[in-house]
Amino acid sequence: MKPSGVVTLLTDFGEREPFVGVMKGVMVDLAPSLRFIDLTHCVPPFDIGWAAFWLANAAPWFPKGTTHLAVVDPGVGTERRVLVAECQNQWFVAPDNGILTDVLSLGPHRVFAVPVQTGVSATFHGRDVFAPVAAKLAGGLATPDQLGSPALGIAALEREAPAVVGDVMRGHVVVVDHFGNLISNLRLPRQMGTTGWVQVGPADGRGPSRRVRLVRNYASTGKEAAAVVNAWGLIEIAVNRGNASEALGLGVGDRVWLELR
Amino acid sequence: MKPSGVVTLLTDFGEREPFVGVMKGVMVDLAPSLRFIDLTHCVPPFDIGWAAFWLANAAPWFPKGTTHLAVVDPGVGTERRVLVAECQNQWFVAPDNGILTDVLSLGPHRVFAVPVQTGVSATFHGRDVFAPVAAKLAGGLATPDQLGSPALGIAALEREAPAVVGDVMRGHVVVVDHFGNLISNLRLPRQMGTTGWVQVGPADGRGPSRRVRLVRNYASTGKEAAAVVNAWGLIEIAVNRGNASEALGLGVGDRVWLELR
Amino acid sequence: MKPSGVVTLLTDFGEREPFVGVMKGVMVDLAPSLRFIDLTHCVPPFDIGWAAFWLANAAPWFPKGTTHLAVVDPGVGTERRVLVAECQNQWFVAPDNGILTDVLSLGPHRVFAVPVQTGVSATFHGRDVFAPVAAKLAGGLATPDQLGSPALGIAALEREAPAVVGDVMRGHVVVVDHFGNLISNLRLPRQMGTTGWVQVGPADGRGPSRRVRLVRNYASTGKEAAAVVNAWGLIEIAVNRGNASEALGLGVGDRVWLELR
Repeated sequence: MKPSGVVTLLTDFGEREPFVGVMKGVMVDLAPSLRFIDLTHCVPPFDIGWAAFWLANAAPWFPKGTTHLAVVDPGVGTERRVLVAECQNQWFVAPDNGILTDVLSLGPHRVFAVPVQTGVSATFHGRDVFAPVAAKLAGGLATPDQLGSPALGIAALEREAPAVVGDVMRGHVVVVDHFGNLISNLRLPRQMGTTGWVQVGPADGRGPSRRVRLVRNYASTGKEAAAVVNAWGLIEIAVNRGNASEALGLGVGDRVWLELR
Repeated sequence: MKPSGVVTLLTDFGEREPFVGVMKGVMVDLAPSLRFIDLTHCVPPFDIGWAAFWLANAAPWFPKGTTHLAVVDPGVGTERRVLVAECQNQWFVAPDNGILTDVLSLGPHRVFAVPVQTGVSATFHGRDVFAPVAAKLAGGLATPDQLGSPALGIAALEREAPAVVGDVMRGHVVVVDHFGNLISNLRLPRQMGTTGWVQVGPADGRGPSRRVRLVRNYASTGKEAAAVVNAWGLIEIAVNRGNASEALGLGVGDRVWLELR
Repeated sequence: MKPSGVVTLLTDFGEREPFVGVMKGVMVDLAPSLRFIDLTHCVPPFDIGWAAFWLANAAPWFPKGTTHLAVVDPGVGTERRVLVAECQNQWFVAPDNGILTDVLSLGPHRVFAVPVQTGVSATFHGRDVFAPVAAKLAGGLATPDQLGSPALGIAALEREAPAVVGDVMRGHVVVVDHFGNLISNLRLPRQMGTTGWVQVGPADGRGPSRRVRLVRNYASTGKEAAAVVNAWGLIEIAVNRGNASEALGLGVGDRVWLELR
């Protein structure tokens, strides 16, 4: 695979300290022509599941040969492995803690473990380990098999898949976005049209649930909450020009059920 | 007009999810040599007026042939048009919802409406419609008239112009910036010096207003609120090393009146 | 020194208004091939000491010939000087207000004062003065001695150095990072191992202090607060997957003492 020269970055480092800038400094020092695109640095601290979700949804939109550097790494400085994965014609550089769960479910892949050199810091492998690995890949200075050895037993998060029970497909909210939209793990079955009904309610199923319409776009939601198929193919609960999470008092883990007829 | 290869981005997508990164991925896939400069992604959600103000104040500082991609788009997925405007030797790609109001008031312009292809998402035209259009323009792959047809009846926001009443020029706060400075819609008349007095108070005119000095720079404001002509040529109320909005309890829409003698 | 073409930016301008984008627009207009890397724009408003700390810790990770543009500038529009410093094979462009204190302590340096042209705004020298200077340096259009004259009496912040008193090295928290980690001004003496004890407590020394272990990495801290040598070589108080500042109720200026035996 030929590198595109593009490196994306996804971390929970925030935007206040120059941690991300320093990682880019290290990379541009190794490979001056690299180009950086930030995915986000506002992953909720240590939230590997959140990071895994967005990494897998974002990566397919990048050119072949892009290197994605994903560092949410509460185990920094421990024996957790440093991985390079090749999947869907892209490279991923990340700690072995489950952050690649959703990416690796996208298709066939090869994964390599990269040895950590001695003498690096025990608290900032983003700078001292991951950034150099990403720069070498993206800059065409090394291939994954030159950087590491094939790795098995990659850490994976448990992901509860939607389940069809009777006439209902049962899922839940996986993330709440910036606008307060509730993104579920439900995909619309092909045989269904783009209209229908969705039930939303608290996770434990005890609180009252509410039926909302499945409509085509946000503007069609009116002032009431409604469901749309979002840009990632997932059913999402939204309020037009409003915040669905606040309006409904719902969040991650809460129930989203699709009526199948 | 020859493209500069620079694309700026202004959205209300926030910095938490990788929405903006994905738009850049789509663009760099179409035109690998593009260079991105973020204006802001922290437009208050759906605040078209705020976006329009800053877009028009920022754009003139960029090279000729820059493409500005501005997506604050509560009508995503509806019939609202997708526009490409050429103005002041720059290109603007945006929804037809008033976000170009202040830009188009900068000078002569041509505006084109670009057809939306079928099959794109109904919720993320930033990625599926606007980004490809911007990439084609900025990458020199298409000209505005190749992308769309001349458009009339462009949506425009109502902007209340300052009014001279007796010895006073009456205006109001149009935005409050990061430092708490109150930016008005008043420009200093040429015949005035750089000193004088400004009245600030609540919008309805009933609450007490306060006279503040017009001074040359922030450091001259002392601990008292004062007015300066800011870097955009507008009269702005500030407190040295402090937050004028909080100190005065004033915000957008509140009264700023310039004493003309 | 040959410019690397990389310009870093560090400001307190925030990420809401397009101030930083406009500075980049000005620079790319003067020198189209420049490449920008943001250090941070979330310096607490006017906090020169915070900015000075991170600038000095970030800069060494960039290629030789990098230009660092640092604008935290409450004195904008006053007579404070505009500086270009050459230090550690890098250039720094900043106001003369102490922001270069920690950078200039890194090693030998030369500093030049650049005259401010008349007619520029009195409120946004980042755009009108500092950005053009940085672009000319980084784009190879001018050298520091062509831009200004040698400058003496550079403003410097007072930095209280750690003091050894008996068996204890006394220091304090200098910054709290995004994760809530308390970063001190203490460096581990060479003769010490990587284990030991650190005392942390309120600044005035009256409140109760607490002994925490010095451990190798964050994951080793368990649920208790502990100390690590961080990636900048400084002793830092952390809680594994938690926020040490909140957990301990401590912040900048509070006491961090290292037991030397």
